[in-house]
Amino acid sequence: MNSKVRLIPLGGLGEIGKNMTCIEYDDEIILIDCGIMFPENDMLGVDYIIPDYNYLMDKLDRIKAVLFTHGHEDHVGAVTHLMQDVKAPIYATPLTAGLLRVKLKNAQLLGETTIHEMQAGDTLNIGQFTIEPFHMAHSIPDCVGFGITTPAGLIVHSGDYKFDHTPVDGWPPDFAKLAEFSQRGVLCLLADSTNATRRGWTQSETLITDAMDEVFEAADGRIIVATFASLISRIQQVGDAAIKHGRKMAVVGRSMKDNVRMALEMGYLDLPEDLIVDLDTARKLGNSKIVYMVTGSQGEPTSVVGRLAWNRSRSLTLEAGDTVVLSAHTIPGNEETVTRIINRLFHLGANVVYEDLTNVHVSGHASREEMKLLINLVRPRYLIPVHGELRHLMAHGQLGQDMGIPEENIAIIENGTPVEMDANELVIHERLKGGYIYIDGSGQVGDVTRRVLRDRERLADSGFFVMGVPTKGREVTGKIEFITRGFLNLEDELFNGTETVIREIVQRHGSKKTGDQLTHLIEEAVIRHLHEETGKRPFVFVILK
Amino acid sequence: MNSKVRLIPLGGLGEIGKNMTCIEYDDEIILIDCGIMFPENDMLGVDYIIPDYNYLMDKLDRIKAVLFTHGHEDHVGAVTHLMQDVKAPIYATPLTAGLLRVKLKNAQLLGETTIHEMQAGDTLNIGQFTIEPFHMAHSIPDCVGFGITTPAGLIVHSGDYKFDHTPVDGWPPDFAKLAEFSQRGVLCLLADSTNATRRGWTQSETLITDAMDEVFEAADGRIIVATFASLISRIQQVGDAAIKHGRKMAVVGRSMKDNVRMALEMGYLDLPEDLIVDLDTARKLGNSKIVYMVTGSQGEPTSVVGRLAWNRSRSLTLEAGDTVVLSAHTIPGNEETVTRIINRLFHLGANVVYEDLTNVHVSGHASREEMKLLINLVRPRYLIPVHGELRHLMAHGQLGQDMGIPEENIAIIENGTPVEMDANELVIHERLKGGYIYIDGSGQVGDVTRRVLRDRERLADSGFFVMGVPTKGREVTGKIEFITRGFLNLEDELFNGTETVIREIVQRHGSKKTGDQLTHLIEEAVIRHLHEETGKRPFVFVILK
Repeated sequence: MNSKVRLIPLGGLGEIGKNMTCIEYDDEIILIDCGIMFPENDMLGVDYIIPDYNYLMDKLDRIKAVLFTHGHEDHVGAVTHLMQDVKAPIYATPLTAGLLRVKLKNAQLLGETTIHEMQAGDTLNIGQFTIEPFHMAHSIPDCVGFGITTPAGLIVHSGDYKFDHTPVDGWPPDFAKLAEFSQRGVLCLLADSTNATRRGWTQSETLITDAMDEVFEAADGRIIVATFASLISRIQQVGDAAIKHGRKMAVVGRSMKDNVRMALEMGYLDLPEDLIVDLDTARKLGNSKIVYMVTGSQGEPTSVVGRLAWNRSRSLTLEAGDTVVLSAHTIPGNEETVTRIINRLFHLGANVVYEDLTNVHVSGHASREEMKLLINLVRPRYLIPVHGELRHLMAHGQLGQDMGIPEENIAIIENGTPVEMDANELVIHERLKGGYIYIDGSGQVGDVTRRVLRDRERLADSGFFVMGVPTKGREVTGKIEFITRGFLNLEDELFNGTETVIREIVQRHGSKKTGDQLTHLIEEAVIRHLHEETGKRPFVFVILK
Repeated sequence: MNSKVRLIPLGGLGEIGKNMTCIEYDDEIILIDCGIMFPENDMLGVDYIIPDYNYLMDKLDRIKAVLFTHGHEDHVGAVTHLMQDVKAPIYATPLTAGLLRVKLKNAQLLGETTIHEMQAGDTLNIGQFTIEPFHMAHSIPDCVGFGITTPAGLIVHSGDYKFDHTPVDGWPPDFAKLAEFSQRGVLCLLADSTNATRRGWTQSETLITDAMDEVFEAADGRIIVATFASLISRIQQVGDAAIKHGRKMAVVGRSMKDNVRMALEMGYLDLPEDLIVDLDTARKLGNSKIVYMVTGSQGEPTSVVGRLAWNRSRSLTLEAGDTVVLSAHTIPGNEETVTRIINRLFHLGANVVYEDLTNVHVSGHASREEMKLLINLVRPRYLIPVHGELRHLMAHGQLGQDMGIPEENIAIIENGTPVEMDANELVIHERLKGGYIYIDGSGQVGDVTRRVLRDRERLADSGFFVMGVPTKGREVTGKIEFITRGFLNLEDELFNGTETVIREIVQRHGSKKTGDQLTHLIEEAVIRHLHEETGKRPFVFVILK
C-alpha cells in the first residue's frame, strides 16, 4: 500500500487545476469541481472544453465524492458530462447545489444523481477522508475552500477566493478556520494563483457601491447594467443603488432572470418585492425611473448588450442618452469583442461606463499581498499553486520561495501531472497522457479532433474550391461545375484560367490514367495555378462526372 | 469658393484618423500618413487593412503632397498601395524616408516616386499650405507633428507622441514650437488619443534602462530580448546594458537586422562596432556573455520567439536557464497568443520577464496629463481627437470639455466624416460611403469582400460537406463520393446515414425533376439530416455525376 496521498490536477485549457482536481489515498478517490473552459480564438467552432478525466475511467468505483467549491461555470459547467460516468454523490453548498440541479435537470441526469447539501463549517467523513468546507469570499455567494484530512496529512484547498473584509453579503472569509488548520499542521496548500502577477491587495466589492452611486447620480436617462448572470452580489449592489435613487429594476435575459429568481428564493438577494418590474411596466416608466440588469459584459453577440449594440434586440432598443455600465472584467481573449461593443454603443449615442476610468468592477481573486497572508495563515509544508496559467503558477511559486518555503517543497505542475506526498517527501511523477477535450455542436466527446481544427483553420484562411469535371477519354465533354466558398471574390477570372488548366491535363493524360490518377493530377495542377494567381492555398477537390 | 479648410480622417480599421488624414483648402489637397491596420481575430484570412481612399480617386491631380509623421507600419505600411495612384511627392524625415524607400523599392515604385527629405524645424511651402514639421518624442526616432497654416487658419497635428523629457535619443519634444503656434493662434488641434483612458503621465523611456540593468544583473544564462524591429531606442538600451554587463549582442531575424543596419548607418543607433556579433560567434561565447535581440514580442508564430517557443527555430534553441524578455506592449487582440507563448517558454524552462511584474516596457503614447498639457500649450479653438478607437476619442473629447473647450468646438468624428472649419464655425458633414479595404494573399484590392469573410466564418465553425452522386432516373447508380473538411470526426457514421437520405430523395424525385431541382432537393435534405445529427450547419453541395 502507498501511504502517500496522491493529487492530480485534471484541468481543461490553459489554467491548471482550475476545472477539476483528483485526490487519492489508498484506493479511495475524491474529486473537487468539474468545470468548463472556453476555447481560445484559434480553436475554431469549438463551443467549450471539458477536463480530460480519462485517467478515472477504469477507477470509477473508487470515486467516493464529487465536491464543489462554488457555482461558476469554470467549476461546475462540465458536471453533466462527468455524471454520465460517475455515480458517486455530489457535495455542495445550497446555492451551488441549486445551480447544479438546474444543469442536471436539463440533461435529464437529476434523477440518478445524489446531491448532499453541505454548509461551511460542516465536517464530512467520506471513506478515509475528513472534509471540512470553510467559507471564503469570492464574486459569488456560498463559496468554500476545503480542509481535507488524509492519513498522510492535512491538505488545504483555497478554492477561488479573495480576502474581502467587507463583502456585499456581509460574510467575510473564515480566518479562524485557516488559523486552526495551521495549528493542527498543514501538509499541503493548494492556492488560487489567478492574480499572482497583480501587486497589492484586491479591492473590496463594496468599493463598487460608491462607483454605482456616482453613475446613478450622473445619469438622466435610462441605465443599463451588464454583468455575469452569476454575479449575485453585483445585482444586489445595483438594486441598492436603484432604491437609493428612486429607480425600479427590470431584469432582461433568461440566465439573469433564472439566477435572480433562485437567489431571491434562497435568500442570497435581499431586495424588496416591488423593486423588480417586468419589461412592459419598465417601458411605461420615465427614463430616469428605471435600471435594466442585463447579460453581455463579454460582448457575446447573442447577449442583451450584444443585441443592443447591433440593433437586434426585440425587447430593448438603445436610445441616445442611455448610460450603459459594463460591470465585469473582460475575460482574456474577449478584449477585441468587448472594445468593439463599447465603440458601437458610443456610436449609437450612449454613455458607456467601463473598467478603464471608473471602478465599476473589482476582481474576485486575491492579489499578491493576500496570497502572502494565506501562506502565513496556513503555514503549509508544501505549496502547490493552482488556478492560473503556468506563468501565474511560476509567479506564485516564486512568491512562496520569497516567503521562505524551500524550492523543493513547491510543486509547479501542469494538468495531468500526479504528485505524491507525505510528511517526508513530495514527489512529482511523469505527466499522464491526455489533452483538451473539445465539445462542439452535438456535445459528444471525440467529434472534434486536432485534425478537424487544423482543417477549419485552413478553411478560415483560404476556403475551398471544388470542381465537377465531365470527361471522356482525352476530352472535357461539358461544362465544368465550380463550387467555391471563402476563397476570393474573383470567380469569373479564376474559373476561366482554371478551365484551361483542366482541359490541358485531361488532353495530356485523359486516355492513359485511371480516374483516381486523373483526379489527382487535376487537383495538383489547379492548386499550383491558384497559388500562382492569388498566393493562397484553398482546399481543392475534383469530382469526375 | 469655399473659404473653409476641409479635413477628413481616412483611417482603416478601428482607430480613427490614424492611418491617413486628408486636408483640403480650395482645390488643393495634402495627405498625412498612409498606414495599415492588422485585422481583428474574426476577419479570417485577411493579411492587413488599408485606408479607404476611394474619395480621392477623382481628385488625384489636386493632391500636392503626402506627408509622413514617422516610420511605424500603421503610418507608412500602405504607401505602396497609395503610390500606385498618387503621383505627388512624399515629404518625410530621414529615418522615415529610409523606411519608405525600402518599401517602395520592394514594390518597384521607387523609380517613379519623388521623396523629399525634411527636418523638424523646416518650413515647406506647398501650394497654399505652409507646413512646419516639429519634433515629437515617440517610440521611434525622427518623429514629427505638423503645423499646417492655411488661409482659414493654423492646424496643429500632434502625430503619435509622448512628452518624454528624457528620451533615449536625448531629443525631447519641441515645446517651444508648440508655444509659438499658440501665440500665433491655433484654429484646430488634431491630437493622439491612444491613451485617453490612462490616468497620469506616461513614464519615460529611460525607466527601462533600470529594468534592463536588473534583468542583466540577475541573469546567469543567455538573455533573449524580443521587441518590435522598429523600436530603435529599445535596441540602444539593450546594447548599453550589454556593454555594461560585458555581453556581446547578436541580432536575429531579417527585419530586426535590416533596421539595425540602417539605424547604425544613419546614426540613429550609437553602439560600438565590436558589440554586435554574428550567430556563429555568439554560439561560441559563454551563455553569460551574449544577449540576442530578436523579433516576436506579439507571439507571431513565424517570429524568432514564436519559433523558439515551439522548438522550430533553426538558428536558436531555447535552453533551461535562458532569460527571455518581452519588451513590448501586447497589441489589443494579441493577448491570447502572447500569454500562450509566455506559458510555453516557462514550460521549456526559461525565465520569462514581461510587462506584468517588471518595467521592461513603457507606452509610446501620451497619457491624460500629457494630453492636458498639449491642449494648454496649443490653446486651440477647435479640438479633434484622432488616433484611437471611438471610446478613446470620447474620453479625450470629455477631457477637452473639462478643460474649458466648449462642446460645440470639439468634433468627435469617425473615419470618412468630413469636417469644415474657419474662425467662425466648425461644421461636421455626412459620413462618406466606404469601409474597410481588406488585403489578402495576392495583395489586390477587392478580392476579399464581406461575403467572403462571412463564408470563411461559417467554414471555420462547421466546414463543408460535398457529395458526388451518380444517378440515372430513380436510382443511385454507383458509389457516392464524399468530400468533407473541418466538419466533425464522424465520417463513417454520417456517410452511411447521408447515403440513405440521398437514395430516398433520388427514388422519390429522380424521374420527375431536372438535375438542378434534384441537386437542390438532395442538398436541402442533407443539410437537415446533418443538423439533426450534429447540431451543426456545414456548407453542403451536391455534384450529380
